[in-house]
Amino acid sequence: MKLGFIGLGQMGVGMAARLLKAGHELAVHNRSPGKAESLAAQGAKVADDVAAACGGDAVFTMLADDAAVESASFGPKGIVASLAPGAVHVCSATISVALSERLLEAHSKAGQQFVAAPVFGRPDAAAAGMLFIVASGVADAMRRVEPLLNVLGQKVFIVSERAPDAHLVKLSGNFLIASVIEGLGEALALVEKGGVDRLKYLEILTGTLFNAPVYRTYGNLIANRKFEPAGFAAPLGQKDIRLVLAAAETLRVPMPVASLMRDRFLALFARGGEKLDWAAVGALPAADAGLT
Amino acid sequence: MKLGFIGLGQMGVGMAARLLKAGHELAVHNRSPGKAESLAAQGAKVADDVAAACGGDAVFTMLADDAAVESASFGPKGIVASLAPGAVHVCSATISVALSERLLEAHSKAGQQFVAAPVFGRPDAAAAGMLFIVASGVADAMRRVEPLLNVLGQKVFIVSERAPDAHLVKLSGNFLIASVIEGLGEALALVEKGGVDRLKYLEILTGTLFNAPVYRTYGNLIANRKFEPAGFAAPLGQKDIRLVLAAAETLRVPMPVASLMRDRFLALFARGGEKLDWAAVGALPAADAGLT
Amino acid sequence: MKLGFIGLGQMGVGMAARLLKAGHELAVHNRSPGKAESLAAQGAKVADDVAAACGGDAVFTMLADDAAVESASFGPKGIVASLAPGAVHVCSATISVALSERLLEAHSKAGQQFVAAPVFGRPDAAAAGMLFIVASGVADAMRRVEPLLNVLGQKVFIVSERAPDAHLVKLSGNFLIASVIEGLGEALALVEKGGVDRLKYLEILTGTLFNAPVYRTYGNLIANRKFEPAGFAAPLGQKDIRLVLAAAETLRVPMPVASLMRDRFLALFARGGEKLDWAAVGALPAADAGLT
Amino acid sequence: MKLGFIGLGQMGVGMAARLLKAGHELAVHNRSPGKAESLAAQGAKVADDVAAACGGDAVFTMLADDAAVESASFGPKGIVASLAPGAVHVCSATISVALSERLLEAHSKAGQQFVAAPVFGRPDAAAAGMLFIVASGVADAMRRVEPLLNVLGQKVFIVSERAPDAHLVKLSGNFLIASVIEGLGEALALVEKGGVDRLKYLEILTGTLFNAPVYRTYGNLIANRKFEPAGFAAPLGQKDIRLVLAAAETLRVPMPVASLMRDRFLALFARGGEKLDWAAVGALPAADAGLT
Repeated sequence: MKLGFIGLGQMGVGMAARLLKAGHELAVHNRSPGKAESLAAQGAKVADDVAAACGGDAVFTMLADDAAVESASFGPKGIVASLAPGAVHVCSATISVALSERLLEAHSKAGQQFVAAPVFGRPDAAAAGMLFIVASGVADAMRRVEPLLNVLGQKVFIVSERAPDAHLVKLSGNFLIASVIEGLGEALALVEKGGVDRLKYLEILTGTLFNAPVYRTYGNLIANRKFEPAGFAAPLGQKDIRLVLAAAETLRVPMPVASLMRDRFLALFARGGEKLDWAAVGALPAADAGLT
Repeated sequence: MKLGFIGLGQMGVGMAARLLKAGHELAVHNRSPGKAESLAAQGAKVADDVAAACGGDAVFTMLADDAAVESASFGPKGIVASLAPGAVHVCSATISVALSERLLEAHSKAGQQFVAAPVFGRPDAAAAGMLFIVASGVADAMRRVEPLLNVLGQKVFIVSERAPDAHLVKLSGNFLIASVIEGLGEALALVEKGGVDRLKYLEILTGTLFNAPVYRTYGNLIANRKFEPAGFAAPLGQKDIRLVLAAAETLRVPMPVASLMRDRFLALFARGGEKLDWAAVGALPAADAGLT
Repeated sequence: MKLGFIGLGQMGVGMAARLLKAGHELAVHNRSPGKAESLAAQGAKVADDVAAACGGDAVFTMLADDAAVESASFGPKGIVASLAPGAVHVCSATISVALSERLLEAHSKAGQQFVAAPVFGRPDAAAAGMLFIVASGVADAMRRVEPLLNVLGQKVFIVSERAPDAHLVKLSGNFLIASVIEGLGEALALVEKGGVDRLKYLEILTGTLFNAPVYRTYGNLIANRKFEPAGFAAPLGQKDIRLVLAAAETLRVPMPVASLMRDRFLALFARGGEKLDWAAVGALPAADAGLT
Repeated sequence: MKLGFIGLGQMGVGMAARLLKAGHELAVHNRSPGKAESLAAQGAKVADDVAAACGGDAVFTMLADDAAVESASFGPKGIVASLAPGAVHVCSATISVALSERLLEAHSKAGQQFVAAPVFGRPDAAAAGMLFIVASGVADAMRRVEPLLNVLGQKVFIVSERAPDAHLVKLSGNFLIASVIEGLGEALALVEKGGVDRLKYLEILTGTLFNAPVYRTYGNLIANRKFEPAGFAAPLGQKDIRLVLAAAETLRVPMPVASLMRDRFLALFARGGEKLDWAAVGALPAADAGLT
């Protein structure tokens, strides 16, 4: 297939490389230049602007936030204006439910299709095609896009036919990860202050009921205080909690743990942690307990 | 070995049966009568009081709370007064760190040994010998007790040589389960109010980063609103959160999610939920969001 | 002085009437018609649009939210475009710090002056000129505007020369009122469930350390469950908490009680309380405790 | 009247001196010696033990916590064993509702009377007879005791005929003060980080809706970071929050702000603040925001 890929950050560059390796024709674009070079060496065509990446059957977006997706999507040279009728915008970025709804409406009006396909996984999983993908879209669009998603992820879950549902599920999933970080952070602070070794404790947790990737990954980051380099930067985590809270406000769902995480990120940034992995909020309970 | 087992509730009865099947001689006791009958039919000797269960090499306690363990342990006919020098008290109950420390001291003074061996798992796991066991005790005691623990659990984790450490780890583990219940409850409330099917959502979670027993077990209980019969009754969950908070207070560790869970249990009981499984607190976020 | 007044809600109509009574020439405007009639009968000129209210020395805005103030301020027929150089925009609405900063910049560029003068008090205080006014602006503008503010309020506090400071102080004050509502709500739920009479309790509080208007006003509303008609509607309270949290996010200040209040409003709306006075969130602790 | 007074800390010494000045015959006792000397100089008789202070018509207790009141009240030489039938135990200490109920029962059985008369106010108010007193007890006992209470306080509020009610009201009042400290702490952190002067801000608050002693007293302590010497030491504040939470647990009342305060005290102690006034928890929001 003839594809476009917009957004070549840590995640996007790995995903785009997977599509190239699978034999697809790929035009790649990134707002700040220089990111496309390694992909060009692998056979990608470098698109100078968004419109130039929208000439094929589908275009992926893997951008950092609502503002970046809005800017790429709307306006005279944006995706909506540039994509052919019947072509698909596959949005893998984690965006707000509200923006997902605006995009669904705009693409429908333009006779195009909109598939939400946000991903779970960090850069190494993106490069290895080991992401988990949560997708929503009308059946016809999903049928065409699913082979591409299978190249990017180890498993694809179809949520529903309504694209914003997948973005809501993705946001709720990031909230759940944040709640794991908080839970681990509090539990580790407690046992450590009680004299139990952090790593021994983690081994017990992940050897029992908490035998899941999320506990292993984040438990190790927190227990080892390994927050640099950031696989998923704290400001991105804060953004996702903000979007969760925005969706919860619209839907009128009180979420006290999400509110707590909002404050945790502010406390992290107040002490200068913007560059750290978002797992660093998991070290705040220890700091509050007087541990270092 | 010649053993005693005190406390024949849902968990204890399954554990005692495992010890019997493994060929040990077992004297069983329960404060309210009638619980010992099925075990007697399997060959257990019924002990009329605590002292009568303390005549062997080791005695297990699997009681509901601090008060029950205190009452069985201290006093003229209690475990400390009745156990032979060198014999071991294996406490599998989930008790406070403070009581665990008192027991360690009392047994040491009496020339006995004290092993903490609390368990993770619900009644079906106890009956099947599939518990996870977290144990602490001095090396000599652990060496003698470990074969017994291997009969009860699928895996035994040695935390340290200090018994109260295992109780702290156990309590922190129950806190972590509670935090999973809360996280799932909030996430399920959000996506359900957004129109996503609860069971479909759960399938996605447990098929991705949250592929752990704790998410499957509690996710299903919450998503299906299946809180009766209680595998682990809500007042026991409340008790464990109280003990976590007591340990946190002694150690000076602020734990906002533990504090939240404290209030959740009160809200559950204020609406009459004392008989339900503790997973029922995971339905409170949905109730707060106006879902039923 | 020749003045304009935009926004004739429950608060604005009382404030405008005070300016009329003080002998000022007043052009009044409200987006939805019909609100100006009583003022016209008192001698006000009815302005058909925003621009028509901007012909004098100063124009007041007393609108419900950021969107309304933005809409009135910007655009070809807005306040910035319509006000004469040197004239003053006195913004008494409770708006975001961010919008206050944009307005300050826009009016400065246009050679106009911007004074923030948000008020504390409910409709009866507005009608009686008994508001408390918190004002910020450059000295020259403040000097001209202060006599007008003294007509509207029983006391005027000058915060600083930077207009957005007054909006921040006002928002923080509304947060403090919300925290009083929450505190009273929790305390009332506790003592009532313990068997103490709510009104007797309130009498004790306001007769001792809590002898302040805010405790009397909100204590009575909560203790008597008198939430209709709304003097300050719950969605406006929610908006202010949202603006407080937005300012706190920009400034990186964790505010757990503000986060709690955010969730309280969602819980109130989830049970259909949009029409009630914001004091109604003070009845939620009682509801959580199983009281009605 | 012939009276006893047990507990000569910062509060008790001032209260006892008031009773002396009013002409009553007073036997005073304090567990650690040396505290009674100044009162002896004013005419008090020094009682060597609790029993020696219980020979009159009434005995006051003004002790630090449940343990101290329990120890003074029960046992062979305690108040219950020593007081004459018909005499009154006036408990001005802030104790748990549970202990208040035990004392009520024990004194009733012994044919004595029990009046709860906890106080609001700090040491200077105790010395000046300017306390606020919240009292409960049967009518006959109250009639006899009220003249004494009027010597100690500027105002006496009768809650009900059930002594534990006054202790519940007192505890809830201390919770409300704590919630004011938290609210002020968060608001001050917000405006200070936004560039507004703390003292100017406080002047605005206490000049408007927050014109109450509690806002002036605690606002000044927090804004001036004046936490030493402690008028009311942080561990006593922590104790009261613990007792509030215990009452709330018994009554099944979720109190999220009380839970928050519990964690605030732990955070304060984790950084070494045990010696400070409890107002010091009001500086934690600023610390979390990176202010010093």
